[in-house]
Amino acid sequence: MRKEKLMELNHLISSFEIEDLTPLEEVSHFVTVKPYHVRLKNGMEFNRERILKNKKDGSAAITMAITKDDEVLFVVEPRVFIKGGVGVGLPAGYQENQEAMEDASKRELLEETGYLAKEIRVLGSFYQDEGCSGALNYALLATNCEKVSSPHLDKDEHIEIFKCTLEEAYELLENGYIKGANAELTMLLAKPYLKERKEGK
Amino acid sequence: MRKEKLMELNHLISSFEIEDLTPLEEVSHFVTVKPYHVRLKNGMEFNRERILKNKKDGSAAITMAITKDDEVLFVVEPRVFIKGGVGVGLPAGYQENQEAMEDASKRELLEETGYLAKEIRVLGSFYQDEGCSGALNYALLATNCEKVSSPHLDKDEHIEIFKCTLEEAYELLENGYIKGANAELTMLLAKPYLKERKEGK
Repeated sequence: MRKEKLMELNHLISSFEIEDLTPLEEVSHFVTVKPYHVRLKNGMEFNRERILKNKKDGSAAITMAITKDDEVLFVVEPRVFIKGGVGVGLPAGYQENQEAMEDASKRELLEETGYLAKEIRVLGSFYQDEGCSGALNYALLATNCEKVSSPHLDKDEHIEIFKCTLEEAYELLENGYIKGANAELTMLLAKPYLKERKEGK
Repeated sequence: MRKEKLMELNHLISSFEIEDLTPLEEVSHFVTVKPYHVRLKNGMEFNRERILKNKKDGSAAITMAITKDDEVLFVVEPRVFIKGGVGVGLPAGYQENQEAMEDASKRELLEETGYLAKEIRVLGSFYQDEGCSGALNYALLATNCEKVSSPHLDKDEHIEIFKCTLEEAYELLENGYIKGANAELTMLLAKPYLKERKEGK
């Protein structure tokens, strides 16, 4: 890993250091929980609780995006409930209005980074927390991405972009910089495709 | 994949078919959400909502368990919010009272399957949903597992055990039977160790 790139990443991470985290008395708005009673055909009965995000399952597209220059795009952002309070992950976002996951992926990549994906493929899908949520996340690989605009972030989104080589990206994963299940699983699912792509070049 | 094993698994899955899923008016008990106000050192301020399970982060141990006869132990159980309503996954459970993750893994494996792990190793860890939870899950590999008792399930736990060869286990993953991020990530993280183990034999 290039020393200057690691310094750049550590600097981005420290830019989001938490000063204060105060519990609020109000009820939650974005994340809610709905209890259900279940009866199976075999006669078993029990209750289960379902996590909703914005009143939906909250299925998300997670995108490993590679630029025309073969650099990987990471997003660095506050993740205030994890150790250190900052996450290094892949561009990701919730599916909107039943759009295709390829479209969700392209839309979120453009919004979060300003990069347009020329080619995109689904690597796989997985339930984020199958015991208490129906969120079915998709892992995607976007290639030949090109910068076409500035990021367009929501009011409460605070994101810094970090770019490095593919080799450095997997080094960051090995070294524990990428700690979220979504990003880790997507990077592992992308490995065989990236190997194939490299050999095909 | 042996045809009779696939029939056995499909039979276990269909044994948990849902008859009815009714939303309840009551508030949730196990899963709750707590809003926080965040202030970063850089001056940014925003709110975030934190998912809690049983009032804790709900960090879990996910165990790929291999018996003395080189069979993998899967658990089949109702997952009522996912497509089909039934999950095929790895034995897993929440950490209790700050116990070591190796201990959580062995305890849950014994409770859910009746198998005792002779050797256990941590494969890695990952945040389940880093945007709105501090749940840090551990992936573990348990080997030389031996059946020592019957399962001891909680009142609301309904689990069937399914055993197959290592090769068949990864076939199930390829074919979309294992759909949860926890199990999928644990099986992918176990791959290099299993390869090494096989070569060492």
